[in-house]
Amino acid sequence: MKALVYYGDHNIALEERPKPTIIKPTDVIVKVLKTTICGTDIGIYKGKNPEIESGRILGHEGVGIIEDVGDSVTRFKKGDKVLISCVTSCGSCKYCKKQLYAHCTDGGWILGYMIDGVQAEYVRIPHADNSLHRIPESISDDIAVLLSDIMPTGHEIGTQYGNVKPGDDIAIVGAGPIGMSVLLTALFYSPSKIIMIDLDENRLKLAKELGATHTINSGTTNVEKAVKEIVGKEGVDVAIEAVGIPQTWDMCQKIVKPGAHIANVGVHGTKVDFNIEKLWIKNLTITTGLVNTNTTPMLLKTTAANNSHLKKMITHHFPLSELEHAYQVFLNGAKEKAMKIIITNE
Amino acid sequence: MKALVYYGDHNIALEERPKPTIIKPTDVIVKVLKTTICGTDIGIYKGKNPEIESGRILGHEGVGIIEDVGDSVTRFKKGDKVLISCVTSCGSCKYCKKQLYAHCTDGGWILGYMIDGVQAEYVRIPHADNSLHRIPESISDDIAVLLSDIMPTGHEIGTQYGNVKPGDDIAIVGAGPIGMSVLLTALFYSPSKIIMIDLDENRLKLAKELGATHTINSGTTNVEKAVKEIVGKEGVDVAIEAVGIPQTWDMCQKIVKPGAHIANVGVHGTKVDFNIEKLWIKNLTITTGLVNTNTTPMLLKTTAANNSHLKKMITHHFPLSELEHAYQVFLNGAKEKAMKIIITNE
Amino acid sequence: MKALVYYGDHNIALEERPKPTIIKPTDVIVKVLKTTICGTDIGIYKGKNPEIESGRILGHEGVGIIEDVGDSVTRFKKGDKVLISCVTSCGSCKYCKKQLYAHCTDGGWILGYMIDGVQAEYVRIPHADNSLHRIPESISDDIAVLLSDIMPTGHEIGTQYGNVKPGDDIAIVGAGPIGMSVLLTALFYSPSKIIMIDLDENRLKLAKELGATHTINSGTTNVEKAVKEIVGKEGVDVAIEAVGIPQTWDMCQKIVKPGAHIANVGVHGTKVDFNIEKLWIKNLTITTGLVNTNTTPMLLKTTAANNSHLKKMITHHFPLSELEHAYQVFLNGAKEKAMKIIITNE
Amino acid sequence: MKALVYYGDHNIALEERPKPTIIKPTDVIVKVLKTTICGTDIGIYKGKNPEIESGRILGHEGVGIIEDVGDSVTRFKKGDKVLISCVTSCGSCKYCKKQLYAHCTDGGWILGYMIDGVQAEYVRIPHADNSLHRIPESISDDIAVLLSDIMPTGHEIGTQYGNVKPGDDIAIVGAGPIGMSVLLTALFYSPSKIIMIDLDENRLKLAKELGATHTINSGTTNVEKAVKEIVGKEGVDVAIEAVGIPQTWDMCQKIVKPGAHIANVGVHGTKVDFNIEKLWIKNLTITTGLVNTNTTPMLLKTTAANNSHLKKMITHHFPLSELEHAYQVFLNGAKEKAMKIIITNE
Repeated sequence: MKALVYYGDHNIALEERPKPTIIKPTDVIVKVLKTTICGTDIGIYKGKNPEIESGRILGHEGVGIIEDVGDSVTRFKKGDKVLISCVTSCGSCKYCKKQLYAHCTDGGWILGYMIDGVQAEYVRIPHADNSLHRIPESISDDIAVLLSDIMPTGHEIGTQYGNVKPGDDIAIVGAGPIGMSVLLTALFYSPSKIIMIDLDENRLKLAKELGATHTINSGTTNVEKAVKEIVGKEGVDVAIEAVGIPQTWDMCQKIVKPGAHIANVGVHGTKVDFNIEKLWIKNLTITTGLVNTNTTPMLLKTTAANNSHLKKMITHHFPLSELEHAYQVFLNGAKEKAMKIIITNE
Repeated sequence: MKALVYYGDHNIALEERPKPTIIKPTDVIVKVLKTTICGTDIGIYKGKNPEIESGRILGHEGVGIIEDVGDSVTRFKKGDKVLISCVTSCGSCKYCKKQLYAHCTDGGWILGYMIDGVQAEYVRIPHADNSLHRIPESISDDIAVLLSDIMPTGHEIGTQYGNVKPGDDIAIVGAGPIGMSVLLTALFYSPSKIIMIDLDENRLKLAKELGATHTINSGTTNVEKAVKEIVGKEGVDVAIEAVGIPQTWDMCQKIVKPGAHIANVGVHGTKVDFNIEKLWIKNLTITTGLVNTNTTPMLLKTTAANNSHLKKMITHHFPLSELEHAYQVFLNGAKEKAMKIIITNE
Repeated sequence: MKALVYYGDHNIALEERPKPTIIKPTDVIVKVLKTTICGTDIGIYKGKNPEIESGRILGHEGVGIIEDVGDSVTRFKKGDKVLISCVTSCGSCKYCKKQLYAHCTDGGWILGYMIDGVQAEYVRIPHADNSLHRIPESISDDIAVLLSDIMPTGHEIGTQYGNVKPGDDIAIVGAGPIGMSVLLTALFYSPSKIIMIDLDENRLKLAKELGATHTINSGTTNVEKAVKEIVGKEGVDVAIEAVGIPQTWDMCQKIVKPGAHIANVGVHGTKVDFNIEKLWIKNLTITTGLVNTNTTPMLLKTTAANNSHLKKMITHHFPLSELEHAYQVFLNGAKEKAMKIIITNE
Repeated sequence: MKALVYYGDHNIALEERPKPTIIKPTDVIVKVLKTTICGTDIGIYKGKNPEIESGRILGHEGVGIIEDVGDSVTRFKKGDKVLISCVTSCGSCKYCKKQLYAHCTDGGWILGYMIDGVQAEYVRIPHADNSLHRIPESISDDIAVLLSDIMPTGHEIGTQYGNVKPGDDIAIVGAGPIGMSVLLTALFYSPSKIIMIDLDENRLKLAKELGATHTINSGTTNVEKAVKEIVGKEGVDVAIEAVGIPQTWDMCQKIVKPGAHIANVGVHGTKVDFNIEKLWIKNLTITTGLVNTNTTPMLLKTTAANNSHLKKMITHHFPLSELEHAYQVFLNGAKEKAMKIIITNE
């Protein structure tokens, strides 16, 4: 089969690989219909994850049809169309029993990282009963791909950890796919003002279409000053970091009011300065985290009912054969006006 | 009356001052029976709070008898014995309505800071109906003083914000009065292992008497290694910072397991390094805060039932006339084996 | 001044009464601009509250201008336009400190019940700093009246106590003003299916306009069967009782799935059968309650941003001089197609 | 093998049955070391569960050694000593993903009810990875048996659903094994007053030894009056029903203060009167439920550290061969002074 294989820093190749087979009775094999490229995949491409073995097939998002089923899988059968959760979970370990599936002792984020992933014609999914979801008919395959990772990440690590509530004023720093997912899921809880902050005017424009009430271009504006002009000098109830660099963290810690939440969703490569000498007194709650996908069933329900906004996040389509080119497009997201790229298997 | 007055960095004096009088109808005047010195007072003495006006009477903890009552005070009358809460709150502003009394727009921590404080023979208490508490008979005046600040701080900002639960493994970094208050209130929730970390063997010994299951001397031991030998390599469920320096913050961020809580109680004077490049993936909750004293009524109930442990925290007694000397004793807490010093008015 | 006075069962009269005056320093006198009639007022009229003293002025909802201010009131001044909360609260008692303002030991629901109320030209409001709210300019006086009681009741006792969450299937039994307020506030949390149940087709039609996804006429349909056809045989996640009779309670207990919530908002006059022999095993949470109005500030924010739906709930207008007639119209709500009636002072 | 078999109302027999075998790859076979009789088993014996098939082996509590392991079981192996949870759960269904294991769509309470149970020499346990627990060495087999059902039931459905908090005044109605388990687990959260209510002086005496601060004999005392003399006329913060009859439910609804919790743990055979005409206004939370056993891992930790109190609940020991007699002893619990009876396999 065709698969996108990682060989180290800036070294990936679409090539022929053997089809995966069932290893454990809890596995299934999925014929991939659609996949996508994540910001994390770009990080891997750029060499940020030297711990990954050379030869690994990348990708952790996708939709497909079950091709083969292990002996103890009970919830799925050959021919079922399924959403592949980016997080694999056994359901039985101490972390799974707390719904911290991200930290499953026999799973977590392993697809396209510790085991071969979804950017291929077929993929083996361990602990299938816990790691796959049926897809309601009203959700198209393209839309479903957005529920593998970005929508549950935005909802759980951004909106829920940030404790977004009706009437809150919130700021989302970063209008990429994850920031947009925070925005779309924050809307579930009816915040009052939603301020989107980014360097890219195209993305800010899309944020407005998706429901942001205000936008700030951080390349041309003093963010702290602009936020406080919008919500008052005390700051926002919730700040959500969806980039992963010291500057965006710093914006968050400067714009929050007493009792506020800072939810960090961004993947950081370096430490940040935490101005605890000013913030110790502010009764803040700061959260970090990898998605658990425990809210995926709920997101499938709400998406089935309404997904017009989600459609707007898909900007490009490529066949699997052009996946290497698609990486280049996504790498130059701003220039290419790329948000989410859907990869379709022929 | 006699009062301890602040005149700037390392400059305090016990001197004669006019007795305070009712200014607003919500005020009361309290004749102080007992007070104490807080770590924060030592910070002020050392010049950490140049924003304080010269001439300010210090102190925010104490017990006394009501001497005079404003016209609209309804819950207290002359002659009532009262606990003075370190935090003053109006009860009506937007923060008070969220029980964030620490951020009351007409109060918060103002005693001995923005207005004259309790280290005196008399003190004016604004918003008396919300800022004072009746004291059950079974609580002695000495013990009651510990409920002005340290016990609610330990409970709310350490134990509650840290989400201490039955069966949890917890670490408390700092065995001073605040760390001990965290320990005593953590016991309300039946954690499994309680590791106390400090440089001072005397304090660690007292921590054991008060209920710590393990102690670590951070001067002689690798804290991270020692903690993980006790609770396993994943780390603790809750780490509570009760010192306020970069090194102790750093210990906390190194010893927590996925899904853990870090509750910062310490007052910091400088920024810290937040290793978010390792912690973004750990689903942590980090909190900061000034005490709200919203749990003081509960603490009065539990203390009325049992306060044998609290007694052990009181190491020294001085009359008000020796308050300047008492500051020197508390400044040299380790050498003097001082934990809490009770000041009694003659 | 003119006021609507209660003289016992089916005996009310609009008559001249002396203007109220400040009694305590925490009082204000409000010149009433608008008021309304509550289902509770109808209950009083029908003799359900013999504990009310003859001669009592009724009414607990309204908007007005402050006319006079007690000495210790600090948050309001003469001339301020204010929303009168149906619940009066001191802010300092043990219940207020838990945000259970409904059970304030010197307040709670007292207006138009234990003390003279708002269906008059003037009203005295005790504990004004805690019991009044400023009104954003974008909210008309008519709309503001709906925030005195029905909207916070629907939100707090229906939606919040019922724990409505994104993706939930919910049923609201009763499409009167309170049921509609539950519906409008449930929408803040993005439930999936919202089933409105009532006998009155007009009200069901309005419910659909306001956002219900399904309606059931309980006069012509087997409710349990109909609900389960919509959401599946396990039942709904949340059932909200907004009528107050045994039959509607019974519907709720029959349509809930394991782990569900039943939130009782209705005011009941008689005991109900609780089928605990079937429900003990179902891991249910059942709540009751009088509104605390602790979410009124949030509701003012969301209403300021958008109140097109609220407008549709106002069906009739009368001047104060026709208040006795307005009671008759509201008594025959179904026939008169009455939802909320606004009373305007000339 | 020997097994206790149900043949209908008042008809049980200890007889020879074939040893169970692995049916699904997720099963294990456990050689039972210890089991016990539950109040539910007595209900079955008395004919309360006609839905149970004749020929069913009873029992859902026990400790044993794994004898055989299905192909997909990964967390346990032959020879492991295990605690058998009274609730079987797949870990993957919609209820399991909410930790409502009691409502697992392929499990729940099925042992000794829908499938053959633990009162036998061997038992088949489905979904073994999710339904068994390793036992720390410091917990004896006798003590471990108490963690199959009564301790998690008391903790989850009584103490946790009742929201017992430090400083609360609580009442537990029923001092049988479940009521005692509520008491022991309520102590984890440091309530202030703990009132135990029962007809049996022996049980009340044991309750005092286990930590109750007050006891009331409901056979000789007016419970409502007695409770209010102890905690004040407003009533308790939490009332926990641990019997399952209308009279004990009624006690609970009469003794609770505004904002209180009523947690029903008792298994009821008939409906009860719910005095909602008095309670609608009280802001109560009432819960029901079957145990989920989601806190069993925590209870194993706390029990490993300290189980001196648990030992006092074991009053009788019998070998499996005398199990029919043991049923008679437990049936006459009061006369026989029986609390928990441990059955040991020879």
